[in-house]
Amino acid sequence: MSFADHIRACNNHDPARAIPLVAGDQRIGWLRRDNAAALARFPRVFAVGPDRVGLVAEGDVDRVSAAVDEVVEALVVERRVPKWRNETFDVMPRWGDRPVFRLDRGAVPFFGVRAYGVHLNGYRRDGGGLHLWIGRRAPDKRVDPNKLDNIVAGGIGNGYGAAATLVKEADEEAAIPAGLIGRAVAVGAVSYRMETELGIRDDVLFVYDLEMPSEFVPKNTDGEIVDFTLMPAESVIERVRTTGDFKFNVNLVILDFAVRHGLLRAEDPEYLEVASGLHRSLD
Amino acid sequence: MSFADHIRACNNHDPARAIPLVAGDQRIGWLRRDNAAALARFPRVFAVGPDRVGLVAEGDVDRVSAAVDEVVEALVVERRVPKWRNETFDVMPRWGDRPVFRLDRGAVPFFGVRAYGVHLNGYRRDGGGLHLWIGRRAPDKRVDPNKLDNIVAGGIGNGYGAAATLVKEADEEAAIPAGLIGRAVAVGAVSYRMETELGIRDDVLFVYDLEMPSEFVPKNTDGEIVDFTLMPAESVIERVRTTGDFKFNVNLVILDFAVRHGLLRAEDPEYLEVASGLHRSLD
Repeated sequence: MSFADHIRACNNHDPARAIPLVAGDQRIGWLRRDNAAALARFPRVFAVGPDRVGLVAEGDVDRVSAAVDEVVEALVVERRVPKWRNETFDVMPRWGDRPVFRLDRGAVPFFGVRAYGVHLNGYRRDGGGLHLWIGRRAPDKRVDPNKLDNIVAGGIGNGYGAAATLVKEADEEAAIPAGLIGRAVAVGAVSYRMETELGIRDDVLFVYDLEMPSEFVPKNTDGEIVDFTLMPAESVIERVRTTGDFKFNVNLVILDFAVRHGLLRAEDPEYLEVASGLHRSLD
Repeated sequence: MSFADHIRACNNHDPARAIPLVAGDQRIGWLRRDNAAALARFPRVFAVGPDRVGLVAEGDVDRVSAAVDEVVEALVVERRVPKWRNETFDVMPRWGDRPVFRLDRGAVPFFGVRAYGVHLNGYRRDGGGLHLWIGRRAPDKRVDPNKLDNIVAGGIGNGYGAAATLVKEADEEAAIPAGLIGRAVAVGAVSYRMETELGIRDDVLFVYDLEMPSEFVPKNTDGEIVDFTLMPAESVIERVRTTGDFKFNVNLVILDFAVRHGLLRAEDPEYLEVASGLHRSLD
C-alpha cells in the first residue's frame, strides 16, 4: 500500500464504462452501462439512449420522487439496489441548487448521483504531539464493517445542511454535546469518484476539525461504532500508508488532515500526489 | 469579482489551443499552437507534428540544455520569449523525476513546462483574530507590478528543493532568519494551468504557513517588495473576493489559507468550488 493507492482506489471511475444521467440540460448522475440498460423498461420515468439517460418524469419534487421510487422498488426486487435505506438524499446538479427529486440513499450509487457527507477529525494535542480519536465500525455495517473510521461521519440527508448533519451525527455517533461540536471548524472538502459493485459513488465530504478537551471521551449511542481509541496521529498516518485498516474514504480524510497539519513533509515523494489528489473538479 | 473568478482566471487553459511537448513517451510541456509552429525551423532539437512536438535533441542534461538554449536565443531575438532571466528551472515529467534538461525561467511559459514555486503565509494571532503579513510588489516587476503578494514567494530553481527555496527567498524577500523560517509548516499545494500572452503556465505552488512572532517586522532586501503591511485576515479575504488587488496566483494561496483556517463558512455558496478548485490533477 501507499498513500496514493488509497486515492487511486477512490478514483477508479472509468468514464468509458458509464453514461450521464441528465435532467433537462444538466447532468445529475453517472449510470454504469448495465445500470442504464436496466432503466429501459421504465420509459415514463427515464429515456435511455446510447450515450445518455434523460429523466422524463414530470412534475414537482414530490411527483418526480414518487415516480423514481417506483423504479427503485423494482430495482430492489431485482437486487440491483440492495435495499431501501429509508433515508433520502437530495438530487441536484450542484450543491446549493434546488433539488430535482429525493432519492433513497440505497439507490444513490445505482444512479451515480453526487452524495454529500460530513467527516470530523477529533484531535488532541498531548505532550506536543497530535492525537486522533478513531472509531471502529460495527460488524453489521454494510460498507466496510469492522474498519477504522473518523470519530464522526455521516451522509447529508435531504433538507439538512452540512452543519446540521454534523451536529446530529456528533450526538448520535460520539455523544459530542452541541456546545462542543459548535467549536468544530470547517477546513475544506475531499472529493472522489469511485465505481463499486452497485454503481458509481460521486462523493463530496465536508471536512471539519475539532480540538477535543482532554476530559472528553466519545461514546457511541447509535450502534454504528463499537469503540473509540485515541491514537498518535503519526501512527494513524503510518497505518494509512501501510494497511487497508481504515474505511476506504477515511484514508483520504486522514491524509487531508495530515497535509493541513504539516504531518507530511513536502519532501515526501508522494506529497504532491496526495495534496492534489484529494480534490477533484466538481464537473 | 468572486472567489471563483480568481480560480477560473488561473485555469483558463483550453486544451484545444495547445499540443503536448513530449520527451520519449512522457509529456513535459504544453505548447500553444503558434508557439509549436515557431519551433518547426529547429528540426535538430524539436520535431513538430500536427498534434505533438517531440524533443529530439540527444545527449545528457547539459547537451540537451545547450541545444534548447540555442532555440531560446532565437526566440528571444524574435521576442517570442521576452528575455533571458538567467535562472534555470528543471524540466521533468513529474516532480522528483530526473530532469530532462534545464530551461531558462524566461522561456518556461513558452514551452508550457510545469514550474514549481513556494508561497508562505506569514500570520499572527492578535487579539483572537488572524492577521496576515502582505507585501506590495515593486513597480518594476514584469508580472503583476504593484500588486499585493504573500510575505515570501519564489520559483524553485534547478537543483533546489522546496525547503531550500523557502529559506533562500525568506531571507532575500523578508529578512526572515533561518531559525524562524525553520518553523514554517508545509500545509499543501495549490495548482493551476493558465494561458498567458507568453504561452501556458502550468504551476504547482508548495504552500507553507508560519506563525510570526509579534516583535518581527519583515524587511525586503532584494528590491522585489516595496513594503509590508499586517492586515486582518478577514479584510484580506474580502479584498480577494471583491478586487483584483492581489497578484493573480496569490488570490489562490490566500483562499487555500482561508479554507484551512476555517475563515470560509461551509455554507458560503462558493465554498465547494473554492475548496475543490485550488487543486488540479497533476496529469
